Amino acid sequence: MWDIAEELRALLVFAEHRYYGESMPFGNLSYSDPKHLNYLTSEQALADFAVLIRFFKKNPDATNSPVIAIGGSYGGMLAAWLRMKYPHVVVGALAASAPIWQFEDLVPCNLYYQIVTNDFKESGAGCDESISKSWSAINRMAGSDEGIRWLSNAFHLCSPLKCKDDVAAFKNWLSETWVNLAMVDYPYPANFLEPLPAWPIEVVCSFLKNPKLEDKALLQNIFQAINVYYNYTGDTPCLNTSQTAVGSLDDLGWSYQACTEMVMPFCSDGVTDMFEPQSWNFEAFSEECYKQWGVRPRPSWITSVYGGKNISSSSNIIFSNGDLDPWSAGGVKESISESLVAILIADGAHHLDLRSNNAYDPKSVLDARALEVSYMKKWIQEYRKQLGVNGL
Amino acid sequence: MWDIAEELRALLVFAEHRYYGESMPFGNLSYSDPKHLNYLTSEQALADFAVLIRFFKKNPDATNSPVIAIGGSYGGMLAAWLRMKYPHVVVGALAASAPIWQFEDLVPCNLYYQIVTNDFKESGAGCDESISKSWSAINRMAGSDEGIRWLSNAFHLCSPLKCKDDVAAFKNWLSETWVNLAMVDYPYPANFLEPLPAWPIEVVCSFLKNPKLEDKALLQNIFQAINVYYNYTGDTPCLNTSQTAVGSLDDLGWSYQACTEMVMPFCSDGVTDMFEPQSWNFEAFSEECYKQWGVRPRPSWITSVYGGKNISSSSNIIFSNGDLDPWSAGGVKESISESLVAILIADGAHHLDLRSNNAYDPKSVLDARALEVSYMKKWIQEYRKQLGVNGL
Repeated sequence: MWDIAEELRALLVFAEHRYYGESMPFGNLSYSDPKHLNYLTSEQALADFAVLIRFFKKNPDATNSPVIAIGGSYGGMLAAWLRMKYPHVVVGALAASAPIWQFEDLVPCNLYYQIVTNDFKESGAGCDESISKSWSAINRMAGSDEGIRWLSNAFHLCSPLKCKDDVAAFKNWLSETWVNLAMVDYPYPANFLEPLPAWPIEVVCSFLKNPKLEDKALLQNIFQAINVYYNYTGDTPCLNTSQTAVGSLDDLGWSYQACTEMVMPFCSDGVTDMFEPQSWNFEAFSEECYKQWGVRPRPSWITSVYGGKNISSSSNIIFSNGDLDPWSAGGVKESISESLVAILIADGAHHLDLRSNNAYDPKSVLDARALEVSYMKKWIQEYRKQLGVNGL
Repeated sequence: MWDIAEELRALLVFAEHRYYGESMPFGNLSYSDPKHLNYLTSEQALADFAVLIRFFKKNPDATNSPVIAIGGSYGGMLAAWLRMKYPHVVVGALAASAPIWQFEDLVPCNLYYQIVTNDFKESGAGCDESISKSWSAINRMAGSDEGIRWLSNAFHLCSPLKCKDDVAAFKNWLSETWVNLAMVDYPYPANFLEPLPAWPIEVVCSFLKNPKLEDKALLQNIFQAINVYYNYTGDTPCLNTSQTAVGSLDDLGWSYQACTEMVMPFCSDGVTDMFEPQSWNFEAFSEECYKQWGVRPRPSWITSVYGGKNISSSSNIIFSNGDLDPWSAGGVKESISESLVAILIADGAHHLDLRSNNAYDPKSVLDARALEVSYMKKWIQEYRKQLGVNGL
């Protein structure tokens, strides 16, 4: 983005989403109860951005400046939606790795985990199979107190596992780790969720070549693999199963949003993917939400507001996705019209195109960026032409 | 609409706006305080319509039915905005007499009263001048207690005027009456705000031929004129200055909306119009709002949300306006693009095109309706074509 901004002689503005970072509408009370959380919605965030941009444009130097929305992941969804709902405010949007279709039944709920599985399958022989077999190995170990103690030691857990629930949480933490690795499988060393080497899944898979090992040997390899993610720097004394990233993402805000608007169905079957079978259980999810936040999720809301797959009336949005990225499952991967275009980045992980230029960027990323800039230039030209015609 | 619906073999659905009629989200408490009124916004109303339409389309017979939004006045604004914000929900909108530009400085604030004035000027010699002179005549009468008593009697007021404030309210009531007459200056007998004859302003003006009369004679004529509006049926024992329509419009809801989002600047100068000079005083308006509702108006909100004059990214909206209608001042009177079209109805009052077919409909109305139907058919064809292509 920095490079694109320089090329377009643009001002880059990073607008903080309400209820994240320092943008707390009610200070310390913001997360205290449903009443104070009521204003944490994507619609309110979009309105914030619209008002902010209008504020900037009050500056005479900026009045006639075209504005382009850029975002990745949820930020990419917001960028796309900002263009859809406020086309008078932004001339276009780059929505990188934006899963705007990961709602209701717009895409199969197991596609996400299939993509993760495929990333591991392609990164080393025996890799996805090792992970696939690890679940039953863990279950067998968890059958005895001695086995549970062994697991806690073998995985260097900061808090030893104590009961069945702990083991379930442990497996969830492992699953999330594999998913996160798929998201950040970048071609160069990076530090998005955790500090990692180039192509981290290949490094992970170097420990997972033999799926046929007996339980303890297999799980020791799994630990080595997971350690690549959590302890690449060698500074981590023990592994903490209550987090899967170094706190750079605001889990709390997203958890509330997932429990209200952002209801994304996921599922796995253990056959077409390397995870334990888990169906999408909306009722159970709703109960969890009610317990945690005192609210019930509205699974049809996002598609009602933002149109689901019926977005062809909108224009000037680039949807970029990487084929390694599990979030591409809910992304727009085929162009919808001349001005709603999809860009697929081969060997691309989560919004790779938004990262800084890098000597190790593959050609697919360079091509994507060049295409993105050419669209942006076109939008800007259109805008300037309209300004001229309307005499604004 | 009934006739258009029959021609298009359409189902007509009248959706009641929240906080109006019987649609009270908090029952009797809905208007009790700002907390309960918080949900009375145009955005919430649009979301209601989107959810309602989706609900209808769950019916298998309706799943693939195109939906067109139709509305007049504020309803016309909502129709246009529904298409702008929810193009996946409605294939197009007919926005009749929708003053979507009567905000901030998008149009001159005195245009509205100029149109009213012109309607009276064109309806009889001396007519606008008589009204223009009536204000100072009233002011002179109001200078003495005897004069105030005379006014109360001469205008058959239900509640006699008592103080200066009453006189100001009386003049406001007269102003509103002239405005309302301009809105409902239909070419046939109608009963929109009040039961009225055909071309009511002509009838009104038949009493206002001589602007040169002395005060009492002039004001007696004004009473005769106003009586056309309030007592055409002859059933009205006295005139009630606290209302200007027979209760068919929900003033209360609109007053709240005007005090929050719907901030419409109006002004008159007494030179280019027949009203007393009155500048647009936002601060005074804001104080009134705070007194009445405990809220402050946000004058820039509507243009921030709905784009003001920058709506060219939208499509499939017909803006129809009548040249007699004061609300055309804030309307879209020139086509913006091939799919954002303006229709001007000569000798047309407030959303005349939405009224039932009538033997007295002038050619301009018939032409407008024919054009509207042809656009609607085009939208429906586009939609069906898209359905076919996408195989939905």
